[in-house]
Amino acid sequence: MFIPTDSWLNRARMFEVSKTDGSSKARLGRLFTARGVIDTPVFMPVGTQGSVKALDPRELREMGTQIILGNTYHLYIRPGLEIIRSAGGLHQFINWPHPILTDSGGFQVFSLAKIRRIQAHGVEFRSHLDGALIFLGPKEAMEIQRVLGSDIAMVFDECPPHDCAPKDAATAVGRTIAWARECREQPRAQDQQVFGIVQGGSSPELREYCAKAIVALEFDGYAIGGVSVGEPESEMMKAVEITEPFLPVHKARYAMGLGTPAQLVELVARGIDLFDCVLPTRVARNGTAFTYKGTVSIKAGFNKTDFRPIEEGCACYACQNFTRAYLRHLLNVKEILGLRMLSVHNSHMYLRLMTDIRAHLAAGTYGQFRDEFVSNYRPSERILATRKVLER
Amino acid sequence: MFIPTDSWLNRARMFEVSKTDGSSKARLGRLFTARGVIDTPVFMPVGTQGSVKALDPRELREMGTQIILGNTYHLYIRPGLEIIRSAGGLHQFINWPHPILTDSGGFQVFSLAKIRRIQAHGVEFRSHLDGALIFLGPKEAMEIQRVLGSDIAMVFDECPPHDCAPKDAATAVGRTIAWARECREQPRAQDQQVFGIVQGGSSPELREYCAKAIVALEFDGYAIGGVSVGEPESEMMKAVEITEPFLPVHKARYAMGLGTPAQLVELVARGIDLFDCVLPTRVARNGTAFTYKGTVSIKAGFNKTDFRPIEEGCACYACQNFTRAYLRHLLNVKEILGLRMLSVHNSHMYLRLMTDIRAHLAAGTYGQFRDEFVSNYRPSERILATRKVLER
Repeated sequence: MFIPTDSWLNRARMFEVSKTDGSSKARLGRLFTARGVIDTPVFMPVGTQGSVKALDPRELREMGTQIILGNTYHLYIRPGLEIIRSAGGLHQFINWPHPILTDSGGFQVFSLAKIRRIQAHGVEFRSHLDGALIFLGPKEAMEIQRVLGSDIAMVFDECPPHDCAPKDAATAVGRTIAWARECREQPRAQDQQVFGIVQGGSSPELREYCAKAIVALEFDGYAIGGVSVGEPESEMMKAVEITEPFLPVHKARYAMGLGTPAQLVELVARGIDLFDCVLPTRVARNGTAFTYKGTVSIKAGFNKTDFRPIEEGCACYACQNFTRAYLRHLLNVKEILGLRMLSVHNSHMYLRLMTDIRAHLAAGTYGQFRDEFVSNYRPSERILATRKVLER
Repeated sequence: MFIPTDSWLNRARMFEVSKTDGSSKARLGRLFTARGVIDTPVFMPVGTQGSVKALDPRELREMGTQIILGNTYHLYIRPGLEIIRSAGGLHQFINWPHPILTDSGGFQVFSLAKIRRIQAHGVEFRSHLDGALIFLGPKEAMEIQRVLGSDIAMVFDECPPHDCAPKDAATAVGRTIAWARECREQPRAQDQQVFGIVQGGSSPELREYCAKAIVALEFDGYAIGGVSVGEPESEMMKAVEITEPFLPVHKARYAMGLGTPAQLVELVARGIDLFDCVLPTRVARNGTAFTYKGTVSIKAGFNKTDFRPIEEGCACYACQNFTRAYLRHLLNVKEILGLRMLSVHNSHMYLRLMTDIRAHLAAGTYGQFRDEFVSNYRPSERILATRKVLER
């Protein structure tokens, strides 16, 4: 069983809000973890398999990364628990002595694993890699995260697709609550925090019901799950809006798997403190860069002889050293440095955005910043398309 | 025509030998270029398409890179001359303000291009990329290198395969000499040096004939070409041994495209000053690391829980930060950081070897270092196989 240490018990609180925005629900805060204090709102670069794609720890620190995310499901499959245990935990294994949040594997089990059988205490499924039969439930997910030794562990939840039947959404909420209770009882790594997850799709009743039940279990923080599962942007925003009022103000809130830069600005305004998203590194590998004005295809012909950086005024290593023309060439000839530099720029852009958000919250100018950012930022065609779906 | 600048004319010499080894033909030297003095013997990391694969300029400088190599053929095809010209030259385009040597494209035309027609003043061939018809000869190769603005340009030569008929080898030597003479007459970039290339395969007569003719043209340095073309190791050593006596001692000598670490040590002992080789970054992408004791497969199962660095005592970023177990995992799950870190280690290993070589030459202990290194270094199976071919 988890025996709290003295240092842990003596800590007044794990999260503190230092300032709230006058024009929205945005908050400036600090999250206290065993490996350091995290300024919020914060973006967590995603290190699915124990590496933030294409980046090294020095680059991550130079761009201001405070905490990264690791994936229980992926790490459990490869390299497997024994190797990470022998290394002394995930921080040691990957040489990242700073905070790590691990997800529980719930999302991956329900999105990646092909054949699965949901049972009372977890899910039996076949590995997406080699078809091996695996059982993952609250007990297993918490044990794996205990071995990983993450600073923040997530409960094991059921994350159904956004277009599932109302009955299935209700069943998923029921299981999510039961499994959260089981997770709560599992032993933890020393000083490990555990965050609960609220499911419930786009139903206000289910979200309220789930949130109240999860909050009653008194977790160290709360996540809004069941977003970033293919739903239109407006539904995602709605899911957050209908859940947030039931989350306690003195605990950190985490919107899982989100989002675009403009969405982050809007979600901060809805009271969210933590974010993670694969977009910065994923679109980098397609040759797309995030800027304060929207996305830019660096591979596009118009960059052929454009000797400006990706984004004027950006302090990232890529913008300080290379031109669009050169990066376009690197992407065209498939040189690794091309996708490396776009990954550097995009991740830096997300972290810089969060730094700007915190500065504006501190200065009391968040409302103005939000308006300007969102009106300057041109969303991608994909996002615009999901907006159109709803306008019809 | 090339009009030498004052600074160029006033330079006493472009290469100076500061010390020679008592036990071999090895020399410690300095090569003066427009962008800096290069300590020799030197290894030049290969940046074929304007990027040393997987590495960024900061990493290259941190590991002690003095000069890199660029490929005329590849850069001419992509991004093409116009883009590099608009950027202000190759150094500007790739953000490498330090020395660059460019090859002439000869080797690539004869090894990569599928259909080709050798003519009096060059070769007509189809691009390996899109089949476009291209003509490259002494005039074109020098013009491209002038636009690239490399510190050292190479003459355009004919590089036949190692198993060609003696008649073809002789014809190639004839053309190589004629083309070298043409190259000599072309305009250069400001302060650009031009190195001649000696061909002649494994024939002592052809090598002597070619070397004398090329040296008579008075280039700024001399390369031994027609090595690293699939020949067994002993033939490669022989080609260098039969050529070197005809090269002037006061000019730099460059063995093109070579070799393994143990071969570099042996080639230094045969009087070579400059090297380039794709091996460090190429084998990295297969999960193989170079060490002072030979190559190691980092992907191998025996590294599963090996929490030591790739090489004990190595100061590279990979060895200072990561274990074999972690790198093996990264390679297994195809994370870019894995091949990045092996590229860092391998390139660093080559540069560190050259630093050691120079230190031992300075201290007068090269003979002992050479014996110890070569006896400790276990060559790869491929090298051992080429040795066996000759023992039969």
